[in-house]
Amino acid sequence: MKTLKEKVFQANLELVRQGLVIYTWGNVSGIDREKGIVVIKPSGVDYDSMTPDDMVAVDLLTGEVVDGTLNPSSDTPTHLALYRAFPNIGGVVHTHSTYATAWAQAGMDIPNIGTTHSDYFHMDIPCTETMTSEQIKGEYELETGNVIVKRFEGLEPDHTPGVLVRNHGPFTWGKTPAEAVYNAKVMEQCAHMAFVSLLLNPQTSMNPELVVKHYLRKHGAGAYYGQKK
Amino acid sequence: MKTLKEKVFQANLELVRQGLVIYTWGNVSGIDREKGIVVIKPSGVDYDSMTPDDMVAVDLLTGEVVDGTLNPSSDTPTHLALYRAFPNIGGVVHTHSTYATAWAQAGMDIPNIGTTHSDYFHMDIPCTETMTSEQIKGEYELETGNVIVKRFEGLEPDHTPGVLVRNHGPFTWGKTPAEAVYNAKVMEQCAHMAFVSLLLNPQTSMNPELVVKHYLRKHGAGAYYGQKK
Amino acid sequence: MKTLKEKVFQANLELVRQGLVIYTWGNVSGIDREKGIVVIKPSGVDYDSMTPDDMVAVDLLTGEVVDGTLNPSSDTPTHLALYRAFPNIGGVVHTHSTYATAWAQAGMDIPNIGTTHSDYFHMDIPCTETMTSEQIKGEYELETGNVIVKRFEGLEPDHTPGVLVRNHGPFTWGKTPAEAVYNAKVMEQCAHMAFVSLLLNPQTSMNPELVVKHYLRKHGAGAYYGQKK
Amino acid sequence: MKTLKEKVFQANLELVRQGLVIYTWGNVSGIDREKGIVVIKPSGVDYDSMTPDDMVAVDLLTGEVVDGTLNPSSDTPTHLALYRAFPNIGGVVHTHSTYATAWAQAGMDIPNIGTTHSDYFHMDIPCTETMTSEQIKGEYELETGNVIVKRFEGLEPDHTPGVLVRNHGPFTWGKTPAEAVYNAKVMEQCAHMAFVSLLLNPQTSMNPELVVKHYLRKHGAGAYYGQKK
Repeated sequence: MKTLKEKVFQANLELVRQGLVIYTWGNVSGIDREKGIVVIKPSGVDYDSMTPDDMVAVDLLTGEVVDGTLNPSSDTPTHLALYRAFPNIGGVVHTHSTYATAWAQAGMDIPNIGTTHSDYFHMDIPCTETMTSEQIKGEYELETGNVIVKRFEGLEPDHTPGVLVRNHGPFTWGKTPAEAVYNAKVMEQCAHMAFVSLLLNPQTSMNPELVVKHYLRKHGAGAYYGQKK
Repeated sequence: MKTLKEKVFQANLELVRQGLVIYTWGNVSGIDREKGIVVIKPSGVDYDSMTPDDMVAVDLLTGEVVDGTLNPSSDTPTHLALYRAFPNIGGVVHTHSTYATAWAQAGMDIPNIGTTHSDYFHMDIPCTETMTSEQIKGEYELETGNVIVKRFEGLEPDHTPGVLVRNHGPFTWGKTPAEAVYNAKVMEQCAHMAFVSLLLNPQTSMNPELVVKHYLRKHGAGAYYGQKK
Repeated sequence: MKTLKEKVFQANLELVRQGLVIYTWGNVSGIDREKGIVVIKPSGVDYDSMTPDDMVAVDLLTGEVVDGTLNPSSDTPTHLALYRAFPNIGGVVHTHSTYATAWAQAGMDIPNIGTTHSDYFHMDIPCTETMTSEQIKGEYELETGNVIVKRFEGLEPDHTPGVLVRNHGPFTWGKTPAEAVYNAKVMEQCAHMAFVSLLLNPQTSMNPELVVKHYLRKHGAGAYYGQKK
Repeated sequence: MKTLKEKVFQANLELVRQGLVIYTWGNVSGIDREKGIVVIKPSGVDYDSMTPDDMVAVDLLTGEVVDGTLNPSSDTPTHLALYRAFPNIGGVVHTHSTYATAWAQAGMDIPNIGTTHSDYFHMDIPCTETMTSEQIKGEYELETGNVIVKRFEGLEPDHTPGVLVRNHGPFTWGKTPAEAVYNAKVMEQCAHMAFVSLLLNPQTSMNPELVVKHYLRKHGAGAYYGQKK
């Protein structure tokens, strides 16, 4: 648990260093799949004064705090819904980063029109449906997770590790908390570039074969980017 | 008074750290409601050389300097008009931050199309009417305050702690000078994101129920964001 | 002369600190009106390795080097043309700052639609005419100065201390080299904000009385911004 | 070889300092024409932990590693194709810098509409054709080099030292690795400014004589920018 708290703590600080959050906005969690425990940032605590021990551990199924004295992030039920639905992910990130949030506010998928995007996100980054009155007035944060999971019906969360919650902002995930932060940074960069590209040429598009080629350069059995491990 | 000067001084420096002002642009004030005294940044003094003792104290009703050797900000009458009209506010900020000012120059309200905005500003951030010749040629800075107060007729300044003065720039407020600066940063961030969102999708909008939900997560009796105090 | 070299040197470094130039782009000059001598940055020298002694002094009328071992900026004839035509200016700046240059490339005046602009530039910031083949093939840098001077026929260079050279970039001036740099920063900020404003609302405009009001708050006999000197 | 490794290493770090890359994105190479050896960044290695000795030397013609223990950048075949086709270049850079990549994603040449652009790139910066299925499924990185070379048929790579690979991003080159990085920074700056200019005025253009004038101020026998060497 100590190691996971440290990893989640470091990943939260990395959000600040990468310019993805201001003030107490944003949060990162990580999971211990064996124990069924999720560790997450406390709610509304300054990044400057936060320590690894401030991270809060909650039960994957019930959401109850099992270790820690502070309240967990108010977005915890959203994180838990993602861990329950996507069995291969080890970390989840939520930010209000500028360009990704702007796409979410526009209610639009971020189109895959470049190899930067394809290197990390196989498809367009999907935007969820508008939430219903029942969802908003009910268990809102849990329902936020549910609309994400619903949006991924028929899609591959492991190949497109992120989503836009409509009128809200981005969630990303990865095999570890650090990888989820990495994907949050990539999504923000792709959101910025796609904004500029579409203003220059609203009709631009990309050959789907090029998407596949780039994704498989970095992922899967035939990957040849980087060093052999 | 010493404490208030220190708070106002620190809040002014925070404007610089948050990238909301360049040179001597912008100003923060705070109020001691019991004494009816407002403390504000001196006019045209560099942030680098400024000290807490340079802050100027003026009478809430008359605007006369009651403590300090420098001229108060030329925007002082605007601040005073806001303190007189909005009884719950403890700090006021004025900046020329890039995106908020650009919306003011466009003469448009910043639409509430995302939860980032709803978390802090309940409604669209309103833009004032064009000032008349009489207002411009009269007591201009006082009249600037008056057009803000008029714009809030029927609106709730405590729930939407900021405004755009048309062709000029943003004013924000809060329970303290620090909170007013915080709201100035949030407004700038929302102004930037709304600009991008509207270029992507001019017809985008947000479910009013989602606005209420997010505002009440952070404000009022049922708030559940952050730590219990 | 030593003092002027130091001032011009410091003003050149300020261009870098304000984010207005990259590499060796941009240049600042200052004038000693009594001696008829202009001091300017050497051509193509790194800001990092430059010293005050590297500044080059040239004759206002002939352009000949009267002190210094390096070549003066290739833009020197443009600076000299401005000093000869505008008798009250003491410093000139040229940059390729992002947004001001983009307006120059668009061939458009920067419209005065906000008080930030009016505080320092009384009118729209004018863009020059396209240069003719004769001007380009002749004494190009001198002709660049001439098209600026021609563009100001009937205008007041002291009240609107800057211009866009079409397809090229901004020149600004002021009573001192430092003030010319200040005006270069303000122009860049106004260019950025006007870009955003016009994309939001192409029809926006500003009451001319408000322009006059703001300009006179800071300039002339009735100015009341800042501290008494 | 030691010197070339050091130069290539330093040029790679400069990409980070100039804000042109994040994480391990981007790569710089340099060539020893006498020995027919190209030195390039290793694939997927962090800039923070990288040392000059990590640079990988490959054969210009075969692409085989001749010195070094790490895998060379996966983009190596693209670099080699450029060195073979453009005999005067000594360094090649690839980045995913924001605005240049956005133009590549839009599938558009960056138009030459300003002297900043003309100072370094004689023509519009060309964007390649969409790659065919055969090219994508074949020796992809080599074919990427081939589409660049094909795009420059009839053009002068020494006078326009950069290209956009459609749906991918920019490549630049120069007489040295450091000059190639310099050109990558200039291209990014020009891509940003051209984006702003075209949104303001889609019909803007530039007199071709002004292009020639600016290019020749800095290049060729009649150049007069900078200091005599």
